[in-house]
Amino acid sequence: MAYSSDDLEAVTWDGDAVAYIDQRLLPHEVRRVRAQSVEELEDAIVTLAVRGAPCIGVFGAYGVALLRARIASDTEFLVAAARVRNARPTAVNLAWAVDRVLRQAQDDTTGEKMLEEARAIHREQVAMDVAIADAGLDLIPKNAKILTHCNTGPIATAGGGTALGVIIHAARAGKKPHVYVDETRPLLQGARLTYFELMQAGVDATLQVDGAAAIAMKNKKVDLVIVGADRIARNGDTANKIGTYGLAILAAHHGIPFYVAAPRSTIDFAMESGDAIQIEERKPQEVTSFGGTRVAPEGANVYNPAFDVTPGHLVTAFVTEYGVIRAPYLDSIPALELRPRIGAFA
Amino acid sequence: MAYSSDDLEAVTWDGDAVAYIDQRLLPHEVRRVRAQSVEELEDAIVTLAVRGAPCIGVFGAYGVALLRARIASDTEFLVAAARVRNARPTAVNLAWAVDRVLRQAQDDTTGEKMLEEARAIHREQVAMDVAIADAGLDLIPKNAKILTHCNTGPIATAGGGTALGVIIHAARAGKKPHVYVDETRPLLQGARLTYFELMQAGVDATLQVDGAAAIAMKNKKVDLVIVGADRIARNGDTANKIGTYGLAILAAHHGIPFYVAAPRSTIDFAMESGDAIQIEERKPQEVTSFGGTRVAPEGANVYNPAFDVTPGHLVTAFVTEYGVIRAPYLDSIPALELRPRIGAFA
Repeated sequence: MAYSSDDLEAVTWDGDAVAYIDQRLLPHEVRRVRAQSVEELEDAIVTLAVRGAPCIGVFGAYGVALLRARIASDTEFLVAAARVRNARPTAVNLAWAVDRVLRQAQDDTTGEKMLEEARAIHREQVAMDVAIADAGLDLIPKNAKILTHCNTGPIATAGGGTALGVIIHAARAGKKPHVYVDETRPLLQGARLTYFELMQAGVDATLQVDGAAAIAMKNKKVDLVIVGADRIARNGDTANKIGTYGLAILAAHHGIPFYVAAPRSTIDFAMESGDAIQIEERKPQEVTSFGGTRVAPEGANVYNPAFDVTPGHLVTAFVTEYGVIRAPYLDSIPALELRPRIGAFA
Repeated sequence: MAYSSDDLEAVTWDGDAVAYIDQRLLPHEVRRVRAQSVEELEDAIVTLAVRGAPCIGVFGAYGVALLRARIASDTEFLVAAARVRNARPTAVNLAWAVDRVLRQAQDDTTGEKMLEEARAIHREQVAMDVAIADAGLDLIPKNAKILTHCNTGPIATAGGGTALGVIIHAARAGKKPHVYVDETRPLLQGARLTYFELMQAGVDATLQVDGAAAIAMKNKKVDLVIVGADRIARNGDTANKIGTYGLAILAAHHGIPFYVAAPRSTIDFAMESGDAIQIEERKPQEVTSFGGTRVAPEGANVYNPAFDVTPGHLVTAFVTEYGVIRAPYLDSIPALELRPRIGAFA
């Protein structure tokens, strides 16, 4: 059974704009917004209206093609493209996709060639997600109890999703999974987005606070954990949403497999280990306030890393568009760099 | 240097009412409320306006004495007392304190003897917290980086606090601790109460989401974890705020000591192990809504255990009013039952 991506299109090309679902309004409202200027593009990324590493990549690719069509000056265009490229420092897909589109920039004063490249990136993303979901299918037992964190569904990738794509595919293949969804503080992507996408897909799910993960593993007999990734080093060290590193430790303690589902574009082949991964620290207000309501005292000192790094030795396997990748990662991950591109003409 | 409890009096006897600080309004407002009827007493406990196991115990003790003074019928009084006693099923201190006051009920139609017993419980609580803080002092290194969860300060005990009492005492002894405070979802006792109490006490602190605990242990080089307890079994298994079990696993993984500070009254000497501890599941709305704002989709299925159980083998030591208690717990914990009461005449 092949995976079909559907329903929610997180990012689309809209002729003279990049259209996207404002993910900050989910699950209450599915609002499609059009970004046209560099400010609007940058703002959508910085404010997490567009989020999910692969989704940001597709968005940035279309965005740069759009900017070329709208900005006559080469210099101005390059400055604008750099603003989009650098709007989120941790997500490697964004820089990767923008750079790939920019390689078409020579002699492309209308943005047509760049737009073609952006469309190719988007098509590849959809094909990659299909391949990831297929690769992960055998890892999901019948009636599996699965724990996941943050959001890795269709709206996070502009395709069918990575970790959530595997789960939804398994559900459609009749495996009847039940998913324990970490709410994922501070921005609640699990409560707002993942639970919403699972409901849309008709997959059984239970929402819980992040602190309930350990007792859920033990008392609910969770069978496996599967999460996405924002950046993966050659040795398997994985940057992902804050809380992932803790989950990996808890899974190891309970003897539960811990899987990371991500496309090859998430791997930084130039990076030896996770020690070099730059962790973005975000605004204290994400922690001290909630929906405009302040919950912590005025002037509270806050540690708000957006990501943490899970050592490769805690990852049971990576689920990629090239199949399931196992340790030793210093052999198996760099080997992926030489594999032919999947989905380029899908 | 002796510990001094001060400032915030969580519960006080007010002549014809039990006065308490409504902890739901902190840190924004310190509002003192008077409870007079059984409904008001029960409601204060159920809604967590009064919270923290020892604080609930003191509150329940005064509450039952008050009810005796206000209710002439023995039968009605006993029904009312039972309602207060059973308002929170997990906190052993509440039932313990109410039962102790009720033992004075015979021939006490005015509630005077019961009030004296409630006052004694309160005095003992203050003395116990002093003894716990003194016992824990040697466990805190100079310039210690300490991680804590939930709230265990003065407002949680109606005394000087348990885990937070140890920390504040260490700060007053010049050890300059820095405290990483888990916000503690779903009810944010860390963000709202613990951070507030540390600010009041002038102790350096940093607030973080619960999911940041693992990376804080690793990157911030946390020296120790110290938490409170709601119920402790003979083998050291410890029920405490949801998230504690996960923290204990993370601490073990990082080689960091994990301490539980609690008075003897928290120990259930009749309970062999934590398997028998009844875990209270609370309303889904605590997770799906936030300050009146719904964050998860309508109809979301929620797992919301108020507590989890940490196995005794993950607890480095217990800090009690009888000193630091170490494994094997099946020997050291039951031995506490025979020790003379501390603080009865403090």
